[in-house]
Amino acid sequence: MVSSLRLPALTSLISPSFTRRSTVSLRRRLHLRPPLAAGFSAQSAASSPTVTEDRVDSKKSGRVQDRGSTDRVITPRSQDFNAWYLDVIANAELADYGPVRGTMVIRPYGYAMWEAIQDYLNVKFKETGHSNMYFPQFIPYSFIEKEASHVEGFSPELALVTIGGGKELEEKLVVRPTSETIVNHMFTQWIHSYRDLPLMINQWANVTRWEMRTKPFVRTLEFLWQEGHTAHATLEEAEKEALQMIDVYTKFAYEQAAIPVIAGRKSKVETFAGAAPYIGYMVIASLQAGTSHNLGQNFSRAFGTQFTDENGLRQHVWQTSWAISTRFVGGIIMTHGDDAGLMLPPRIAPIQVVIVPIWKKVDEKTGVLDAASSVAETLKNAGLKVKLDDTDQRTPGWKFNFWEMKGVPLRIEIGPRDVSSGSVVISRRDIPGKQGKVFGISMEPSILEAYVKDRLDEIQSSLLQRAISFRDSNIVDVSSYEELKEAISLGKWARGPWSASDADELRIKEETGATIRCFPFEQPQGTKACLMTGKPADEVAIFAKSY
Amino acid sequence: MVSSLRLPALTSLISPSFTRRSTVSLRRRLHLRPPLAAGFSAQSAASSPTVTEDRVDSKKSGRVQDRGSTDRVITPRSQDFNAWYLDVIANAELADYGPVRGTMVIRPYGYAMWEAIQDYLNVKFKETGHSNMYFPQFIPYSFIEKEASHVEGFSPELALVTIGGGKELEEKLVVRPTSETIVNHMFTQWIHSYRDLPLMINQWANVTRWEMRTKPFVRTLEFLWQEGHTAHATLEEAEKEALQMIDVYTKFAYEQAAIPVIAGRKSKVETFAGAAPYIGYMVIASLQAGTSHNLGQNFSRAFGTQFTDENGLRQHVWQTSWAISTRFVGGIIMTHGDDAGLMLPPRIAPIQVVIVPIWKKVDEKTGVLDAASSVAETLKNAGLKVKLDDTDQRTPGWKFNFWEMKGVPLRIEIGPRDVSSGSVVISRRDIPGKQGKVFGISMEPSILEAYVKDRLDEIQSSLLQRAISFRDSNIVDVSSYEELKEAISLGKWARGPWSASDADELRIKEETGATIRCFPFEQPQGTKACLMTGKPADEVAIFAKSY
Repeated sequence: MVSSLRLPALTSLISPSFTRRSTVSLRRRLHLRPPLAAGFSAQSAASSPTVTEDRVDSKKSGRVQDRGSTDRVITPRSQDFNAWYLDVIANAELADYGPVRGTMVIRPYGYAMWEAIQDYLNVKFKETGHSNMYFPQFIPYSFIEKEASHVEGFSPELALVTIGGGKELEEKLVVRPTSETIVNHMFTQWIHSYRDLPLMINQWANVTRWEMRTKPFVRTLEFLWQEGHTAHATLEEAEKEALQMIDVYTKFAYEQAAIPVIAGRKSKVETFAGAAPYIGYMVIASLQAGTSHNLGQNFSRAFGTQFTDENGLRQHVWQTSWAISTRFVGGIIMTHGDDAGLMLPPRIAPIQVVIVPIWKKVDEKTGVLDAASSVAETLKNAGLKVKLDDTDQRTPGWKFNFWEMKGVPLRIEIGPRDVSSGSVVISRRDIPGKQGKVFGISMEPSILEAYVKDRLDEIQSSLLQRAISFRDSNIVDVSSYEELKEAISLGKWARGPWSASDADELRIKEETGATIRCFPFEQPQGTKACLMTGKPADEVAIFAKSY
Repeated sequence: MVSSLRLPALTSLISPSFTRRSTVSLRRRLHLRPPLAAGFSAQSAASSPTVTEDRVDSKKSGRVQDRGSTDRVITPRSQDFNAWYLDVIANAELADYGPVRGTMVIRPYGYAMWEAIQDYLNVKFKETGHSNMYFPQFIPYSFIEKEASHVEGFSPELALVTIGGGKELEEKLVVRPTSETIVNHMFTQWIHSYRDLPLMINQWANVTRWEMRTKPFVRTLEFLWQEGHTAHATLEEAEKEALQMIDVYTKFAYEQAAIPVIAGRKSKVETFAGAAPYIGYMVIASLQAGTSHNLGQNFSRAFGTQFTDENGLRQHVWQTSWAISTRFVGGIIMTHGDDAGLMLPPRIAPIQVVIVPIWKKVDEKTGVLDAASSVAETLKNAGLKVKLDDTDQRTPGWKFNFWEMKGVPLRIEIGPRDVSSGSVVISRRDIPGKQGKVFGISMEPSILEAYVKDRLDEIQSSLLQRAISFRDSNIVDVSSYEELKEAISLGKWARGPWSASDADELRIKEETGATIRCFPFEQPQGTKACLMTGKPADEVAIFAKSY
C-alpha cells in the first residue's frame, strides 16, 4: 500500500506537449547529458569561453540570445517543452547531474526553493500537532516483504546494500524508498494503550527509488521529501488527519507556490485497493505533487501494531502517511516558467528583488552604487530577499536578462538620473517589456517599501490567476465516452460524471491511455449521468494521461 | 584526507570512568539492547505495566525511584557512566535502537535538540557566505579510490550498494561516508576561473559508516550532520575559512550548548599528514564534537579541480571542509546530565519551562487550570518554549520528577493558594531541592516574563561555568613524561610543552594509550621546555586517551 507514497504520474495539465514528446526526447533520460546542460554559472560562463561557445554554436537562437546581451539560450517552451524544462534548470543553475545515472545535485538556487517549501510546511506540520524525528534509512529486506502490495510496488526499484564494513551481509538492506515498514516496526514498540494515540510524526529525509526514466526534480533515483506518519485509535480520526494534511498541502500550493492544484480522491483502480479499507488522496497539477493517505490497518496488521482500547480490548491502529518531495520544485518551474526562463512566485523566490545599478561614466559610479546600496538596505530591513548585482563584469542589459531568466519577481534599476530625482525604475518579471516597467518610484524608504510589497503581492496573485486560467482552459467537460476520447486525444483533461465499473476504467486506460486522476473534492451540484453507462453518478472524475 | 571529516575519538574529559568501563560494558554495543532501554514513553509506561515492572524489578534503586513518585530508574552517573548515559537516552525518549544493528531512531525530544543546533548554525553559515545545497548520497566506488588516504581511512567502514532495480550493478556504489569526492567531481565542472572563487557551500545530510562499536548519538552506523565544503584561490584564504568555521563552532558550543570546548590544531600524527600540506582543527570536549579542516590541494589534485588565475595560469584550488553531527547531542547529554537525568541548557532545550498545575479538590481544578493556561500563554507570547502538563493521569510529584529527568530548565508550580495570591512557585533544574525553589513570583505578565527570562539566562551561564570548572579540574599541567603518565593513569588530561618527534608521540600512545588531542589555540606565554626532550617548545599540547 505504500505505493501510496510513490510520486509517479506526470500528467499533461500544464504541458500537453511534454507528455507527447517526452518519450522521444533523448534529454529526458537523465543519464544522457544534454551537451549544453553541463553546469555553468554566470561567472563561469564569463570565464570559460569554451563552454559558452559550445552552447551558442550548437543551438538555434532563442529569444534570450536574440536580445543580444546574454550568451545563454533557452529553447522556446512552445517549441519543445522538455528541452525548455532542461534548459531552464541548467541555465538558472537549479540542478545538475550527479555522477551516478539518475541522480541529481541540487544547486544552491534550486535548493533555496526547496528551503522555502520546507520553511512553510515545517511550521504547519508543527501547528497541526506533529513532531519531527528521524528513522534510519537502512531497512531489513524482510520488512519490505511483510506487506503484500508493498513488495509488489517497490521490489523492482530497490537499491540494496549487500556489503557492509568489508563483509557480505547476512540480510540484504533496503535503502529506504519510503518508511512505512520501519515506522510500523517502531510504532509497535511505542504504542501500547489508547493513551499513546494519536501518535503523529514527520521526517525530512532522502529516499531512493531505482527509476529507469529520470528527469531533474520530477523523477530522480534519490530525492528529498518529508514523510508524515500517524497512528490513530479509529478510522474516522485517520480519515480526518488525511484530509487535514491534504488541506495543508493544498493551501501551500495555492498561497505559496501559486499552483492551483486539484485535491481529490483516487479511484480504487489507481490505489491498488486490496481487501483492507484504503482511501487515498492526491493533489494534482502538472504533477502528482503531494499525497496524503488513509492507510487503514494494512500496515498495523502486517506489523502487529496494536493498542489496548478503553475497554481493555486489543485493536490494530489506523494510520495515515503523507508526503511532498523535491518534485514540487519541478512543478513550480513548469507551472510558471516562460520562454525567458524561470518565473518565481514571490513567496518561493530565493531572491524577490534584484537591484541593477546603471552607470556609464566613472564619476557616476559612486553615486549610483551608494543609492543602490541604500535601497537594498531599506528593502532588506523590510524583510525582503534582495540581491544587489553590482559587478562591473557585465552590462545592465545582460543582467536584466540573467535575472529574468532566474525568475526574480521584481527588478529595480537605478541610474544617474534616478539618483538626481531620488527615484527608481521598477520592472515586473510577470509583465514583459515596457508594460511591466514603472518609472519614478520614490526612494523614500516607507514609500518604496510599501510599493515593492504591494507589487510582490500583486505578482503572487497574478501568477495564481494565470495558472488557474490555464488549468481551466485545459479541462473539458465531457458527457460521453466519445467526448472523453476526443479531449484526451487533444492532450486535454476530461472531466465527467462517473459511476461505472473498475473494468470500464481499465478499458478507458487501454483504449486512450487516460486514467482517473481523481474524483475532485469540489463537485458540481445536481444529478448526473455516468459518461460511460448513462446511469446516475454521484461524482465527476477527471481523466488524463498519466506519464 | 577525509579522515578529516570523521568524528571519532571519545576522550575522557567529562567522564574518565566512561572510557575505562566502556570496553567491558555490554550496553555499549548498540546491538545488544539493554533489556530496559526499549523505548517507552510516559504514556506507555502508564499503560504497559509489564514493561514498567521489568525496569523496576530488574534494577537496583536509583535516586529517582527512591523519591517514590515515578517508576523510572536511572543508574547513578558516578556508579556507571555508560549505563547512566543509556538510561538517560531511553528514559528521556531521546533515541531508540533501529532494526539494523548500529542504527538509531532519533525520537522527537532528541530530534528537537538537533533542530536547535541546526537552527542556530544554519543562520551562521549563511551569514558567513555559505549556501545550502544537496549532493547525491551514492558515490561511484572509483571516486573513493582517487585520494589515497581516503581509501585507507574509509574502506573498512563502507556500506556498498551492489544491486539496483533488481540487477547487479556494474560498479559498486558507496553510500556516502562523507562527500569530498563527489563535491570535487562537481566543483571541477563548476569552477573555471578565479571569478568562480571562493565557492562556499554546505549540506545537511545523512552519512553512513559501518562502525562496529556503536553508541546512541556518539557513534552510529548512520548519523545526521552538516558538511561544509569550500574552494579558494589561495592557501591563506582556505586557512582563514577553516579558522572562521572553527570559530563559529566554538561560539555555538559556548553560547548555545554551554559546552566549554577546546579549539586547537591537530598533531601531524593524528591528521595522517601526507606529502601535501594539510592542517586540521578540532574542537574537543568529552567528544571530538566538530572539525574544520584546511584540506590543502589534496582533493583538487586527485580530481583535477583547477581554475585559471588572474595571470591566465591554471592552478589547483585550495579547499576546506567542516562538520558537526548528531554526536553533539551526545556531548550535551554527557556534559550537563546528572543522576536525575538530562539537564539542558535553555538555548538548546525543546521545552524551556514546564508548568505543573496542582489541585486536590475538584472545585479547585478549574481555577488552577485557568491560571496555568494564562501563565503558559504569557510565556509563549514572550517567545519561550512552554509545556503545560495538565494531564490528570499523574500526580504532581511524578510530573516533577519526569520533567526533571527530561532536563527542562525551569518548572512553574501553580496551586490553589498561588491562584489566590496571584503568584507562582518556580524551581530551577540546575539547583536541586528547596535551594532552587522560589515562592511568590507574581503572575503579572511583565513581571513573570522578566523573571523567567532572567532565570533562564542565569541557568545558561551557570551550566557553562560549571562545565568550565569541571573541565579545568580535569586538566593537569605536566612538565615531564613521568607526570604525564601519572595524569593519564588517573584518567585526567595532561597538558604540557611539546616539541618532540612524531616517533615520541607514537611512543606515548603505545605506552599510555594517550595521544595529542590538540595544540590549543590559546597558549600560555613564555618559554617552555618540551616535557619529553627538555628542548625549547613553542606550544603546549593536550594529551588524553582517545576512545
